[in-house]
Amino acid sequence: MVINKNDLNAMGQAAKNAAYSLALLSTDQKNIVLRQMADDLVAATPTIIAANQEDLLGNLVAAKFVDRLRLTPERIADMAQGLRDVAALADPTAKIDRGWVNDAGLQILQKRVPLGVVGMIFEARPNVTVDASGLCFKSGNAVILRGGKEAMHSNIALVTVLRATLKTAGLPVAAIQLITDPSHELAAQFMHLTAYLDVLIPRGGAGLINAVVQQATVPVIETGAGNCHIYVDAHAELPMAIDITVNAKVQRPSVCNAAEKLLVHKDVAAEFVPALVTALRAHGVEVRGDDRVAALVPDVVAATAADWDTEYNDLIMAVKIVDSEDDAIAHINAHNTKHSETIVTNSIAAGQRFQQRVDAACVYVNASTRFTDGMEFGFGAEIGISTQKLHARGPMGLTALTTIKYEITGNGQVRQ
Amino acid sequence: MVINKNDLNAMGQAAKNAAYSLALLSTDQKNIVLRQMADDLVAATPTIIAANQEDLLGNLVAAKFVDRLRLTPERIADMAQGLRDVAALADPTAKIDRGWVNDAGLQILQKRVPLGVVGMIFEARPNVTVDASGLCFKSGNAVILRGGKEAMHSNIALVTVLRATLKTAGLPVAAIQLITDPSHELAAQFMHLTAYLDVLIPRGGAGLINAVVQQATVPVIETGAGNCHIYVDAHAELPMAIDITVNAKVQRPSVCNAAEKLLVHKDVAAEFVPALVTALRAHGVEVRGDDRVAALVPDVVAATAADWDTEYNDLIMAVKIVDSEDDAIAHINAHNTKHSETIVTNSIAAGQRFQQRVDAACVYVNASTRFTDGMEFGFGAEIGISTQKLHARGPMGLTALTTIKYEITGNGQVRQ
Repeated sequence: MVINKNDLNAMGQAAKNAAYSLALLSTDQKNIVLRQMADDLVAATPTIIAANQEDLLGNLVAAKFVDRLRLTPERIADMAQGLRDVAALADPTAKIDRGWVNDAGLQILQKRVPLGVVGMIFEARPNVTVDASGLCFKSGNAVILRGGKEAMHSNIALVTVLRATLKTAGLPVAAIQLITDPSHELAAQFMHLTAYLDVLIPRGGAGLINAVVQQATVPVIETGAGNCHIYVDAHAELPMAIDITVNAKVQRPSVCNAAEKLLVHKDVAAEFVPALVTALRAHGVEVRGDDRVAALVPDVVAATAADWDTEYNDLIMAVKIVDSEDDAIAHINAHNTKHSETIVTNSIAAGQRFQQRVDAACVYVNASTRFTDGMEFGFGAEIGISTQKLHARGPMGLTALTTIKYEITGNGQVRQ
Repeated sequence: MVINKNDLNAMGQAAKNAAYSLALLSTDQKNIVLRQMADDLVAATPTIIAANQEDLLGNLVAAKFVDRLRLTPERIADMAQGLRDVAALADPTAKIDRGWVNDAGLQILQKRVPLGVVGMIFEARPNVTVDASGLCFKSGNAVILRGGKEAMHSNIALVTVLRATLKTAGLPVAAIQLITDPSHELAAQFMHLTAYLDVLIPRGGAGLINAVVQQATVPVIETGAGNCHIYVDAHAELPMAIDITVNAKVQRPSVCNAAEKLLVHKDVAAEFVPALVTALRAHGVEVRGDDRVAALVPDVVAATAADWDTEYNDLIMAVKIVDSEDDAIAHINAHNTKHSETIVTNSIAAGQRFQQRVDAACVYVNASTRFTDGMEFGFGAEIGISTQKLHARGPMGLTALTTIKYEITGNGQVRQ
């Protein structure tokens, strides 16, 4: 199956036309196709694995990278299950947000409709191909995918299966398209395809996301950068503070909602910091500290200025002692990535100030940052976690892939 | 008062700091300042008029342009009244959208908060300076304004008044800043100020808006382009169709929600088109038509291909005869600016198809496109009418200048 000719204008126009068709499908029709895609993926396991082998053999890459790239029958089954889970979610476009009658007697309905055409730019995880295709399809959007060249054979195999399911169902295959030319020139053109793309969503590391934000003229939803902080206030329950810090750091250190930094009020530092360092080290965490931390625990690694802006995604935590809650808030607002921040305190006033003044999608009192997640929030599968303020913020469920449309019905009204 | 040194990074940082202060103000505090700004503007009328005279004398411009630029005591009083009207609106940040308790027992509140720093790029209307400042202040946002060089003296005078009010109230003057260097280099830098601007809103003609969309990497809300259509279906009540078409075309032809194009089903064309042309001409409208229209009314101006994509903003209307509703919908989706479209019909099926398939912010059945307006929708003063799909669509009230924040409160929860 010829996927495309990498003519982005032609792909964009085809996607737009496909999107107009998808918007007319009923929820039942979409769910049947999603479940069929799941079955067809499982049935194509040998073909997909063979394509994935080509990617693995063609890349001389780090073990960590190979793990992201590798597909197994279990992982293909997981991707298929993900599609079935998306089928089970509520259809975000089956919704009338509100309605009213205006002064002129017009009935105004504010309905949820698909965005239209979604662009996805991502790296070497082939599962993003299936996840994004499923979420876009369920929400009635066409998608154009631009994955990393390392996973190209895998992505082609996966997209070929999904498009075959669309074709069998009598739906436009242009609903799911893959850019197969991995050049930077084409990526740059993709980021400027304002005539056809309604939104561009980068999924991957900070480098990719920053590159897209800095270059794209298509509206971007920034996701996933997480330099998350925990602030242990003077009025904290210290055992709770240790539990929350250890959980937020070690439960899954590679993800964006893991904590990277710890700020401690000076009044509790002498009691808290040594106990905390012991607890973190028991979980294999390298602790870095400023001078005041080093005065309490002499063998911590010295934190440099760069540490405060670094997302480690690893078993490393930098600790700083602050003089006040205001200093903690100012430090967080200067260095965070607007993702998730926590205060541990028993003071109502301190908790209120922190939640009001810290600039982030999710601001916690007395809980681990690890809860910032579409499933934990009850949204179901997520497109990502938005760290920007426009359109969507925090965990994004299917609704983030929709917009509104006003449908207005009158009986001949004209404006006076 | 030195307004700034046109150092955009310094202005951005100052705006960000100011925004953190504004977000802490109560609704009462903001409303008092807005009313004081109104009084101070009126009191400064002679100074503002004098500055405006410099702009008028410095520009050799068309009469239409002079009218947009000219300030009179009445227009200054109108701007002041606009600020009082904004004070009377509900505070969009005084809102908790929803709340729930998740499976782990965390209380999650989804609150409305200001976006932070808003950038406005506009042309020669000095009233935008006051409107935008008032709307941004009410919603808790700092604003950086970049107006046209033709209105520079007027804008400096207006911003000086508003900042003096802020200063007297003990608030950061960086909440309202004006770029006084009108160079294109600085405008380009402004459009790439992603570190500080949360959103960029262009206000003006299609040329300005397209330039911003094509160049900016800051998230943009596109506003105001309106190539709006009326489709007269085979099942239309023809007198209603004439009333709606005349109203949508002539009631205020210079604005974005005025109709520019008329599509007529072939089955009613022979009866409808001659009557319609007579009615439009009675209001001074130049009618342009395709060949089939010319066959019915030989003296219409021949429409060219460019007509179908042109927003006239004037007493001109292009008319086309179509074979079917599908052809009308396809024509609209190919040529419209996603603003406002109307079908005149008595067929439920035709109305449903049109509202579902036409891709626009506002899709009407049996009403004039002129109702697409914040006041008509009941939203109060509007920032503009969004023709894009991300974040806001259609008439934008104060809520479009806010985002959400999740405030999550627990009692020590950690992720399992």
